[in-house]
Amino acid sequence: MNVLSSMPAFDPASKHDKECPEMEILVVGSVGLDSITTPHGKREEVVGGSASHFAMSASYFAPVNMVAVVGKDFPEETHQLFRRHKIDLEGLQIVEGRTFRWSGYYNIDYHKAYTLETQLNVFSDFKPVIPDRYQTAECIFLGNIDPVLQLQVLDQVKEPKLVVGDTMNFWIESKRDEVIALMKRVDVMLLNDQEARDLGETHDMIRAGRRVLGMGPRAVVIKKGEHGAVLFHGDEIFIAPAYPYSKVVDPTGAGDSFAGGFVGHLARTGDPTARNFRQAIIYGSIMGSFNIEDFSLYRISQLAESEIATRYDAFRELTRF
Amino acid sequence: MNVLSSMPAFDPASKHDKECPEMEILVVGSVGLDSITTPHGKREEVVGGSASHFAMSASYFAPVNMVAVVGKDFPEETHQLFRRHKIDLEGLQIVEGRTFRWSGYYNIDYHKAYTLETQLNVFSDFKPVIPDRYQTAECIFLGNIDPVLQLQVLDQVKEPKLVVGDTMNFWIESKRDEVIALMKRVDVMLLNDQEARDLGETHDMIRAGRRVLGMGPRAVVIKKGEHGAVLFHGDEIFIAPAYPYSKVVDPTGAGDSFAGGFVGHLARTGDPTARNFRQAIIYGSIMGSFNIEDFSLYRISQLAESEIATRYDAFRELTRF
Repeated sequence: MNVLSSMPAFDPASKHDKECPEMEILVVGSVGLDSITTPHGKREEVVGGSASHFAMSASYFAPVNMVAVVGKDFPEETHQLFRRHKIDLEGLQIVEGRTFRWSGYYNIDYHKAYTLETQLNVFSDFKPVIPDRYQTAECIFLGNIDPVLQLQVLDQVKEPKLVVGDTMNFWIESKRDEVIALMKRVDVMLLNDQEARDLGETHDMIRAGRRVLGMGPRAVVIKKGEHGAVLFHGDEIFIAPAYPYSKVVDPTGAGDSFAGGFVGHLARTGDPTARNFRQAIIYGSIMGSFNIEDFSLYRISQLAESEIATRYDAFRELTRF
Repeated sequence: MNVLSSMPAFDPASKHDKECPEMEILVVGSVGLDSITTPHGKREEVVGGSASHFAMSASYFAPVNMVAVVGKDFPEETHQLFRRHKIDLEGLQIVEGRTFRWSGYYNIDYHKAYTLETQLNVFSDFKPVIPDRYQTAECIFLGNIDPVLQLQVLDQVKEPKLVVGDTMNFWIESKRDEVIALMKRVDVMLLNDQEARDLGETHDMIRAGRRVLGMGPRAVVIKKGEHGAVLFHGDEIFIAPAYPYSKVVDPTGAGDSFAGGFVGHLARTGDPTARNFRQAIIYGSIMGSFNIEDFSLYRISQLAESEIATRYDAFRELTRF
């Protein structure tokens, strides 16, 4: 069964007159220029950042509104790429100075990203300002930025139906209290396995997930890269595999693309409740699997909806017994 | 649905007059005494070895015949434990000298077993001799021993329907040609993820699995511990999670218990063909999950069939979307 095609396809031109109670998405995060070396090659100053990867991924599912900051040096062609995907850029601040830059590399095992240099540039003074018409967005994704800023976002929005948060080890170590404060205000917390172990203070990933769940979110999703993802919701655990057929070229942004599929599915179906989380995780895994197949947004900005549907069917087959 | 209870339960007393075409299992491997330290405690000279863990696990599914060697110091109570589980010991050689011993420990993350000492003792002269009435066993498990000995076993048996092989890095490094020769004579090769990467000579686990498949077996199963297991069969991939609710006390033997559930299910149903491999992997994961909950055979020798059935149902729920 092709589940995706049985759902309303995303057609931006008609989004206001369809029957499906599609929801709008707000993402706040980073937009930057990455210089990345992997065993498959090297790319200089390609578009990156949590908001970029998330927005591109989510754009296949529902309307996306982006809040972030770039410098005047940010390439106009990337603004155009976002606009072609109907990503609303009213909230994208363009300020004097240089755009955020990150450079890093992966070894042959792709086990982790090694940072060579981080230039915060205009990001160092970033204060998220949520435009009026974004404040009623039903689905919010707080990309991996300072948890103080993530909390400021939540102070500016009106009764969202779904808040999904992301973070990283740097914040868990340097602003643990703020991360824990955030945990009480998100519906779903996304973490990779090391972040979950750090936040849950145990090596046992299952116990870590349960401990993070105890900090406040309705659900916790632990992303394990090549080993898939695990959902914790109450006493329930759901385990999704990673798509095993992708060629890994560049994993940068895979977690944000995962988040884009996850939030995107919940927004598209107009049902951001727990009963819908399992399918949302499968869409997350699918979008992560596309992300890693090329550098930057090269692959994930050029998807056909049928490709997403085909992988959804493949996930059913992968786990059937 | 309780799948296990809908299948013929293992009742050794009646095994010759049931309708189900249950098959006999032959296991050849090690039986030894382990001294193990884990974050949960320490046990001295408890029963271990690939044949012990496999046989105990498989005994819940079908009749098991064991070929191994122990010294005269091997505790009589363990012989009795095996016999209570209807594990046939005609092929267990009891010779002058000391039984194989292994001692090791695990750190808090249980990432790997660290060996403190290996005493081969009577195992150093082990030559597997398959008793006449074992030679027609339909399902054979070649536990992790010298691949030369594994090949000798296959020279002594008559047209088995299923041969499942296991190995370890030590043999992949020291007797690679013999391991590759073995690969052409097994139906299913079981490997952990590091062994698969070593044998397939790539960091990419999926590619490694495909490469090993190309060496000859009908199917390859990569065991990933807490991350579950992956089946490769032709172009097909099946991904099974690990049971996420187990308390890890001692992982020693989990892979052999996995093999016991895998081969056991295939033997019990009398259908050791590829269409049955997926369910067999779930039973493998279940038996591995019991194995790790206590030292040695303590947990896995005391299971109720209903516990196995309950976990089978849990696995369906874990992966449903």
